[in-house]
Formats: sequence, structure tokens, C-alpha cells
Amino acid sequence: MPVVMNEDDLQGFLAREFPQTADDFVIEEVADMSIRVRLPVAERHLRPGGTVSGPSIFALADVSVYLALLAMIGPKALAVTTNCSIDFMRKPAAQTDLICICRLLKLGRVLAVGECLIFSEGTEAPVARASMTYSIPPER
Amino acid sequence: MPVVMNEDDLQGFLAREFPQTADDFVIEEVADMSIRVRLPVAERHLRPGGTVSGPSIFALADVSVYLALLAMIGPKALAVTTNCSIDFMRKPAAQTDLICICRLLKLGRVLAVGECLIFSEGTEAPVARASMTYSIPPER
Amino acid sequence: MPVVMNEDDLQGFLAREFPQTADDFVIEEVADMSIRVRLPVAERHLRPGGTVSGPSIFALADVSVYLALLAMIGPKALAVTTNCSIDFMRKPAAQTDLICICRLLKLGRVLAVGECLIFSEGTEAPVARASMTYSIPPER
Amino acid sequence: MPVVMNEDDLQGFLAREFPQTADDFVIEEVADMSIRVRLPVAERHLRPGGTVSGPSIFALADVSVYLALLAMIGPKALAVTTNCSIDFMRKPAAQTDLICICRLLKLGRVLAVGECLIFSEGTEAPVARASMTYSIPPER
Repeated sequence: MPVVMNEDDLQGFLAREFPQTADDFVIEEVADMSIRVRLPVAERHLRPGGTVSGPSIFALADVSVYLALLAMIGPKALAVTTNCSIDFMRKPAAQTDLICICRLLKLGRVLAVGECLIFSEGTEAPVARASMTYSIPPER
Repeated sequence: MPVVMNEDDLQGFLAREFPQTADDFVIEEVADMSIRVRLPVAERHLRPGGTVSGPSIFALADVSVYLALLAMIGPKALAVTTNCSIDFMRKPAAQTDLICICRLLKLGRVLAVGECLIFSEGTEAPVARASMTYSIPPER
Repeated sequence: MPVVMNEDDLQGFLAREFPQTADDFVIEEVADMSIRVRLPVAERHLRPGGTVSGPSIFALADVSVYLALLAMIGPKALAVTTNCSIDFMRKPAAQTDLICICRLLKLGRVLAVGECLIFSEGTEAPVARASMTYSIPPER
Repeated sequence: MPVVMNEDDLQGFLAREFPQTADDFVIEEVADMSIRVRLPVAERHLRPGGTVSGPSIFALADVSVYLALLAMIGPKALAVTTNCSIDFMRKPAAQTDLICICRLLKLGRVLAVGECLIFSEGTEAPVARASMTYSIPPER
């Protein structure tokens, strides 16, 4: 399947539709059924000790699957997360950006499933693993 | 088992240890192996349309299990989330606080498991369901 | 909502549609959005030590949500599990039946979500917790 | 890390420790932190229509993570599954073996996390995705 939104399209979509959080995410690379997204670390993501918080990691996985989906089906703001499973495996490195490598495993008519590995930049062992299901509303 | 931290103890702990997010959560009631926590809705939790964001719902479930655990074992800031599964089932009501009803199902020596139902205040059908595993580090 | 299939209806459905596994499950009680199902322990469910195997616990949770769903919408054999999250919290008692208490949390047009607590009969602390999503195919 | 049990070691371990289910699984390849396991399709795994049942898919993922773990730490029969999340994404092909590709993402002192993709043999799109956490009991 062809990608119908590129990095700039997705970044622009995020800025328009989710202005509160658009600065949290940098779309680094889009490809067929996959995406790489960066969370530039900022004070608001941190927990005591300087590591990135769980909700920030969740948000990174969630937005990555969403954007990987939109890259394939176009700007449908109404797709919604229905399920997430996440394993927090290691403490993120202090003061270090997170990188999310995300792949769509299924892109159906009503459901899409994506999986993510999240790394502290420059580190080989993943900080977290997540899988997400999105429900795609019918066209009207 | 007796509860070793009450509502005020937990609210104070949150304010000291997690000052960035302490205002997000109001501990309403603590009991044996259970807790009720409120997320007072604020601009920073919202998505377009006025509903509470997924990461905010995740954060509410996460903190609720954490605090239910601390209520039983005392102030061990080092307990960490290792797994979360969450089902988003309904759109939260616009501009409405969320209420999390959380129950510990297991409180072991190294692992604790809690489950949460999350409601828009005044609504009977839950917005989300979550289960969380915490790892409890050994005493030193 | 009214229950449209009672205990006997569901047991008969299971015997007709899933003859390989129908003997594994006894439907004990059906109510609005909930069900109680028993797994009568047999040699084929056991692991060394006499405890019930993980796949048998999974199967019990899966069939319970399926039957709770059919009790509400009628005999649609085509509903399929799309997601399961399960926490194994305690070792089941040896040579003891399992009881699954299941509740539907959502019954939508295309997705249903149920949650289960599973107990060794006569024991208060749950052996496992599971949540399941079913996809309901459109009528034709 | 070196692999401490090879394909034959693991197959022998399964035959000795889990004689009821050992025939269900063929260990095809073991490598550092990964394994490939086959489920040879048999009547007992099937549902109406000839597809492999959900519990059989769960069992395949569960045993794969277990064996990938034992390959790294040696024959510790006591490691137990504490959590599983599984997405069923496509109907398995009728009368076709399943292949599980499993990778350990974390191998800690007390917890290990693995992820699996499961395919109908000869098919590119995965039937299911699973992640599993195992708890490793302390040495005595």
C-alpha cells in the first residue's frame, strides 16, 4: 500500500488537530506500515531522577500508532484507541530523548493493530514495548 | 491487612514526591486493598471536543494502583509499573471529572496487581478499564 | 437489556457448535451482562503438580465472555476474540474446579468488552484476571 | 549471552516435564534471546471451519517464551507466566501448521518479557501477536 501522508503532512496534521501536544512529538520517518517518532525530552515529561514518566511513554506509543495509521488511510481524526497493552522493561536514561519504532501489524476495515518498541536514544535495549488497537469509524 | 497510609498521608506523599502531577489527583477514599481517586478536569487533560485524553486516563489508573499499593505497604517511592493493559470503552463526558475505582487483586512480595474502572462523574457506564502490575523492589 | 439465551440455551449452543470443548464448561448462572462458568477439572487440564494449565484458564475466560455476549445478542457463532489480557496471580489449587465470574463492561455495535475473575472453587483470592474484546460481525 | 540449551535439550525437557503437551510443539531453531516453534496442526487444536483455536494459539505463544527463557537460563521448570497480552488479528489458514517467532526483550533477575508473532505456515501476515511476562523464582 502506498503511504498517503508523509512526515510533513503528519506533523502539520498534529499541529492543527492536537495543538496542546504537537510539540511533544517529532515525526522522523514514515514508510509502508511503519513510522519512527521522537519524544524530545522536556521538563514536563520527567519524574524525580530525571527519567521520562509512564504517561509520556504511553502517549508516545499511542501517537505513533495513530500516525502510522493516518499515513496509510489519510487524515481521519476520529480513529480512536480501544486497547493498549504496555510493558515497562527498563528505566529510561535520564535527560535523553525517547525514540519509538512502530509497525502496523494489521490494517483492517474497522480495526488496526500496531506494535511499538521504545528506546532511550543511543541505547540498544528497549525501555518499553506497547501494542495498540485503533477503531476506525465508518465513512459517512 | 490494615491500611498504613490514609487519604491525607497519600496526598502529602504525592505532593512531596511527584510535585509536577500532584494537582492532577485527589484521593477521595482509601480502604483495605482499594482506593477511589478523582482527576479534576483541567485544560491540560483535554483533547479537541473537550474529552479527557488517553494519556490522562492512563495516568489516573497508574497513580491509583500505585497509591492503593502504598496505602498497604507504606511510602516506597521505588515501586514501578511493569505492565498495563487498558481498554478505552466510551468517550469521556466533556468537561467532567473522572473517577477511578481501583482494587488490588494481588499484593505479593515482589509483584502487585490492581484493576481499575474509570467513570465520568455521574455516569454509570465506565469510560475505561485498566489493569496494572507493579514490581516492588526488595528492602535494602 | 433482557437476556435472550438462558443457561440451557447456551449449554446447548456450546454442545452443537463446539462439540470438542463443550464438556469443559458448565454454565452455572446467566444474568444481565454477566455469567458464571465452571471448568470441571479433568486430567487434560492439568500440569505437573495437579494445577490447571494456563491455556485452560485462558479458554475458560474466553468462553465465558463469548457466552455472556451471546446471552445478550443471541447465537451468533461468528463473534471472534480480537484481544485478551490476562494476569496469572496465584497457583490454582490442585484437583479443584475453576469458577469464572464474568461481566460485560461494554456491548457496542461492533465491539464488546468483558472482564473475568477466576477462582479455585472455595478460595477467596482470585487465581487470574482476564479482559477480552470480541468483534461482532455485521448482520448480513 | 550464550544459549545454554539447544533445540534437542529443550525438546527433551518438554517431553520429560510436560508429557501431556510435548507433542504439540516442535522446536525448530534456538538463538540468542530468540526461538522459532511450530504447532503441528491436529484435530484437537481445531475449531469448526478447520482453524486453530484461540487457546492453542495462546499455548504456542506461552511455551515459546518459556522455552526461549530456558534456552538462556537453563532448565528451571518453576518459571511461571504472570501476564499475557494477545491480539488475534486474522483467521488462521485451515489445516495449516502455525509458526511462532519469539524474541526475549528483557531477561532480568526476576522478570522476563518476550514477544511473539504467530503465522500460518507460508503466510506473510501474522495471525496473532502476543507478549508474555514470566516470573523467575529465586534460586534456593
